[in-house]
Amino acid sequence: MSSNDVYAVIMAGGSGTRFWPMSRSARPKQLVRIIGDDTMIQATVARLQPLISPDRVLVITTAALAEETRKQLPMLKPEHVIAEPVGRDTAACVALAALVVEKMSPGAIMILLPADQVIRPADQFQQALAAGVEVARQGNLVTYGITPRFPATGYGYIKLAQRLGDVQGVTVNKVLGFVEKPDEATAKKYLSDGGYRWNSGIFTWKAEVVLDGLETHCAWLTEALRPVAEAWGTPSFATVLNDVYQPLKKISIDYALMEKATNICVVTADFHWDDVGSWDSLYDHLPKDADGVITQGDVLTQNCRDSLIVSQTKQIITAIGVDNLSVVVTADAILIVPKGRSQQVKHVVDTLKAKGRGELL
Amino acid sequence: MSSNDVYAVIMAGGSGTRFWPMSRSARPKQLVRIIGDDTMIQATVARLQPLISPDRVLVITTAALAEETRKQLPMLKPEHVIAEPVGRDTAACVALAALVVEKMSPGAIMILLPADQVIRPADQFQQALAAGVEVARQGNLVTYGITPRFPATGYGYIKLAQRLGDVQGVTVNKVLGFVEKPDEATAKKYLSDGGYRWNSGIFTWKAEVVLDGLETHCAWLTEALRPVAEAWGTPSFATVLNDVYQPLKKISIDYALMEKATNICVVTADFHWDDVGSWDSLYDHLPKDADGVITQGDVLTQNCRDSLIVSQTKQIITAIGVDNLSVVVTADAILIVPKGRSQQVKHVVDTLKAKGRGELL
Repeated sequence: MSSNDVYAVIMAGGSGTRFWPMSRSARPKQLVRIIGDDTMIQATVARLQPLISPDRVLVITTAALAEETRKQLPMLKPEHVIAEPVGRDTAACVALAALVVEKMSPGAIMILLPADQVIRPADQFQQALAAGVEVARQGNLVTYGITPRFPATGYGYIKLAQRLGDVQGVTVNKVLGFVEKPDEATAKKYLSDGGYRWNSGIFTWKAEVVLDGLETHCAWLTEALRPVAEAWGTPSFATVLNDVYQPLKKISIDYALMEKATNICVVTADFHWDDVGSWDSLYDHLPKDADGVITQGDVLTQNCRDSLIVSQTKQIITAIGVDNLSVVVTADAILIVPKGRSQQVKHVVDTLKAKGRGELL
Repeated sequence: MSSNDVYAVIMAGGSGTRFWPMSRSARPKQLVRIIGDDTMIQATVARLQPLISPDRVLVITTAALAEETRKQLPMLKPEHVIAEPVGRDTAACVALAALVVEKMSPGAIMILLPADQVIRPADQFQQALAAGVEVARQGNLVTYGITPRFPATGYGYIKLAQRLGDVQGVTVNKVLGFVEKPDEATAKKYLSDGGYRWNSGIFTWKAEVVLDGLETHCAWLTEALRPVAEAWGTPSFATVLNDVYQPLKKISIDYALMEKATNICVVTADFHWDDVGSWDSLYDHLPKDADGVITQGDVLTQNCRDSLIVSQTKQIITAIGVDNLSVVVTADAILIVPKGRSQQVKHVVDTLKAKGRGELL
């Protein structure tokens, strides 16, 4: 199943406050063990195997998170965890990754994916990736579209064009266009239309193909970054990266390439997928007991329903008659919020910031 | 205001699980700082001043709790914290206290009161006690009855007999009888009748009067305990106490004396009183903010209502949109229970016991 010319590049520079108190500025969602034994980035690397062995996995993150990321992924070569000196949006990240992959293995294929998604089961995910790799080999820019299960307003959508056929049992279409997060009425229309997919944010392409595309539609970017490829594997890499990155204008890969390219395909993927933007969405994506309760840690529940109760401490949590509540316990903070209101966690974080409680952020 | 012949005896041997996780078997309710800076027994001693100075306060507790009790009450003479070798119900406790007080100060008056009640304000409480002392000087057994504010089913009641008049501005009646915790219909009848008071469990009498009463109605008890008075102040006190206590039959002061004596008066007390049997009743008796929220410790609430959120740890508790909930956080346990269900805390404690989690009890 494994091919030596297929690389994975994990985008892991994200910050975010919606999983406070478990996620913190120095330890965002992807580096946190929210549920289970692995952090999200560890789970992401594990989920790629056996398709992509760890020696062909790269991570692009920030300078502040690189050390912790290397620590959590000891099976990766340390130099494969690349720290962007500053954030310059996704097109720069993609170009950097493609230049490095193409330098390491000319003609290679790269799978680009976020570090902080919930995806299962792994074998269905790998099957979709394998199909995407085959489509990418033919010179296409491959996206993965999830069949909508409800009228989600929190995701971008991909509008399907004509069907190209099945590859390894997976449906592949051309792409008519990308649409931003819709309002609810539009989302309902997309759902009933049947011709839309959730945009998973996962891509597969030959490094040289995406670099060609960027050269065509955003030449200044590849031009500016070219020295990075020359410096890869030399002691001056970090310095060169910093020098070329600092003056870059910010531009997204959607705007720089995807909205303009014509060689885009979408693989329809039906694995369970979520970019888990909140405690509520995490609850929706995890297995529950018969009463709809999810627990982690030392938790004793009596007559509880539809609740998420998770702890990182040794304190036992005893919940009696609790209904529709999220409870998150860490060493220095406890969050209690009814389900359906976890978007408000960011307001708590803002309040803590305003109160000068930086030690909690 | 203070009289040198008035003693207080605090009954502080209680155990109980209803304030778990703050109260534990080795540290029951009266020894816990549930709300505020003082433990309940410290608050009880403080509330007696200036009526009773600490050198005339005695505490009767258990062997297991004596050391911690002395530690919490350094202003008391250590020998004034008396440890019952075994529990032999309230009549033995009363007889022991009366024998010691009478030995220390013949003819003295003793106020007997539990260690774990919420009472405020202190001056109104002291005013009622002072009136009771005056009534007790005339040879009466004085009880304190709280005017019912609602049809409580959790308290015993005192049925008033004829009014004797006002003493120091406080109404005094003879007592027709004592009734156990009523069902709700009966409690409603008591409330509308107007002739019933909640039995506060606080008493005042001359030590010699209560001893006379016990001799009349329960002679075997005073007979058995008499050697304790002789041993008071000698090195053999603990040994003698143990020898006479072990073989005693258990009998309550209600059954041994109060239901039989005829010289009982009741002082109607209108201070805010509760024997706080649960987190719910504690909530009812504490001052709240405009949204009905009580917090202790590092607590941040947003849009919360009618909740009790208390912590003994340094963890910040952030509660968003929480309604009608009790949250209690200690170093090793967290309790979350909707208000109105805190009676079920004892089931949690039973479950922990059954699971062999003795370290949490």
